[in-house]
Amino acid sequence: VAQPTVVVSFKGNRTLRLAVEEVLADHCLIVYLMDLPPKGRSSALESADALLSNNLAVELDPDELGRLRNAKLIQLLTAGVDHAPLSKLPPGVPVAYLPGAFAEPMAEHAVAMVLAAAKRLLIEDRNMRKGEFNQFVPNRLLRGGTCCIIGFGGAGQATARLLRCLGMKICAVNRSGQTDESVDFVGTVRDLERILKGADVAVLTLPLTRFTQGLIGSRELSWMKHDAILVNISRGEIIDEGALYAHLTAQSNFTACIESWWIEPVRHGEFRTNYPFLELPNVIAAPHNSSSARGWQARAARRGAENVHRVLTGGSPRFIVTEDLYFR
Amino acid sequence: VAQPTVVVSFKGNRTLRLAVEEVLADHCLIVYLMDLPPKGRSSALESADALLSNNLAVELDPDELGRLRNAKLIQLLTAGVDHAPLSKLPPGVPVAYLPGAFAEPMAEHAVAMVLAAAKRLLIEDRNMRKGEFNQFVPNRLLRGGTCCIIGFGGAGQATARLLRCLGMKICAVNRSGQTDESVDFVGTVRDLERILKGADVAVLTLPLTRFTQGLIGSRELSWMKHDAILVNISRGEIIDEGALYAHLTAQSNFTACIESWWIEPVRHGEFRTNYPFLELPNVIAAPHNSSSARGWQARAARRGAENVHRVLTGGSPRFIVTEDLYFR
Repeated sequence: VAQPTVVVSFKGNRTLRLAVEEVLADHCLIVYLMDLPPKGRSSALESADALLSNNLAVELDPDELGRLRNAKLIQLLTAGVDHAPLSKLPPGVPVAYLPGAFAEPMAEHAVAMVLAAAKRLLIEDRNMRKGEFNQFVPNRLLRGGTCCIIGFGGAGQATARLLRCLGMKICAVNRSGQTDESVDFVGTVRDLERILKGADVAVLTLPLTRFTQGLIGSRELSWMKHDAILVNISRGEIIDEGALYAHLTAQSNFTACIESWWIEPVRHGEFRTNYPFLELPNVIAAPHNSSSARGWQARAARRGAENVHRVLTGGSPRFIVTEDLYFR
Repeated sequence: VAQPTVVVSFKGNRTLRLAVEEVLADHCLIVYLMDLPPKGRSSALESADALLSNNLAVELDPDELGRLRNAKLIQLLTAGVDHAPLSKLPPGVPVAYLPGAFAEPMAEHAVAMVLAAAKRLLIEDRNMRKGEFNQFVPNRLLRGGTCCIIGFGGAGQATARLLRCLGMKICAVNRSGQTDESVDFVGTVRDLERILKGADVAVLTLPLTRFTQGLIGSRELSWMKHDAILVNISRGEIIDEGALYAHLTAQSNFTACIESWWIEPVRHGEFRTNYPFLELPNVIAAPHNSSSARGWQARAARRGAENVHRVLTGGSPRFIVTEDLYFR
């Protein structure tokens, strides 16, 4: 019998390729799209029984997307799908993503930034490098404080578990207003005003969709404590960029920990801000690197390959992208 | 009956004085040494039934120390006593300190620095402010790693609890080689080589004594992993300053998180290093501010005042400084 063909459209280093091959090489023909000459790409995509992709918008030309009509699964290796051109894929081809794929490293990164803000780590390190030794400027304890987690999927729950361990109360916000996780309160965006007013820390871990874009604007920021810490490890567009900049310049004790930006290399081909956030002392800036923890890209590749294997051996796919996650 | 006299030798803001007064004002005459004219100091110290001091070496002149011969307790508000001129006090006067007084804020600060190092927070924030967006430089997960905690008193145990919560294995080092805390291994300095060789993180939380000075030298540093994270929240002198600088320049993936320095304002009247640590990218520098968490100085003052109250009402003192803690 002919082996099914799995096309891999991300470049992938040796480790990533090995992870895919460990799962699929015995049962499939693995074709690395990047290794093909330009004229070989179309037929490879047309013969693909499945596609493994990291960044669909970059790896395939718009007209190549339609050639995937024979695929039984298009498997993305990301936890967010907002930047994938889903509406340009052949209708009826199932698309899967990896919800919570980077939950643990994202959670540690979020906690790292929250603690760095509470302890003034970056500010005082800069001061010391300028010759100042400010031993007695008060910093803050997380223990006993309250954290609002907006978006309570894999990353949100993992972040909650760590912050709860550090002694914080957790108020979670999700679509259902329900959770099996251990929290002090769970609600929906309708509870946002009440929750944000009581929060010392707010962490954004929700997907960017047409419903969540601009969720945090000047009104929502005005609800927050003057010295609160806001962490964005989801997508820049969840926050109104201009509103956040204005808030940060007006409230010098408010800290924004920005790991996810509005215009970023992976999604936009460049990094750029419309306001000079990087000149502000009350910003902790990270280059969207929370999922770059060593070994985790290979882990995601393996998990994606396993879902492909499942489908190509007659199983039903996991992690299917539902219509409510479509952004464009 | 005459009320006992408690002399307070630290300056203390309103909050600190209130904390002391809440505990002692009903039973004692409280005399603030800083409020007295110079010629009133001697008789106040001679009549003191107890002294509350934050920094004995700074608050009292050397010849004033001997005047405390009638004191039933000299209560220090610090968790470290190395810089107190204990040998110049009248013999037989009990001296108490506050072991673990700042354990929780110190532990949070240690974890903040460990996470900041693992996630490259300071390095990538600096890079972004210079225009670099290094999304794919690998960072590290703490979960699953091993932390060695040297000195397993209040601060060490509090740090261990937090890091254990984050999923790290804990190897503790103390004098007895025993603990009731939940750890993966506990030993003494005789186990240091084996423990340091396996550690991803090492945290110093031990007192500076004549036995611990210079404990971490070039040999001990050479035992550590090339990319380990070393955190000092105890006293600079535990580490050989030159050896650490040499190690940091030779091992660019090794990170030192230095909160406690060799020459510091509180103990030496100035901040100074003998090597340019503050020019190194693989140093996270903090101005010995882990105990400056809001509210914790007042908490320590209250705890010290409670011990004074205990002694002046006929109880036996807690937290007595034992001879093995003497440094000079």
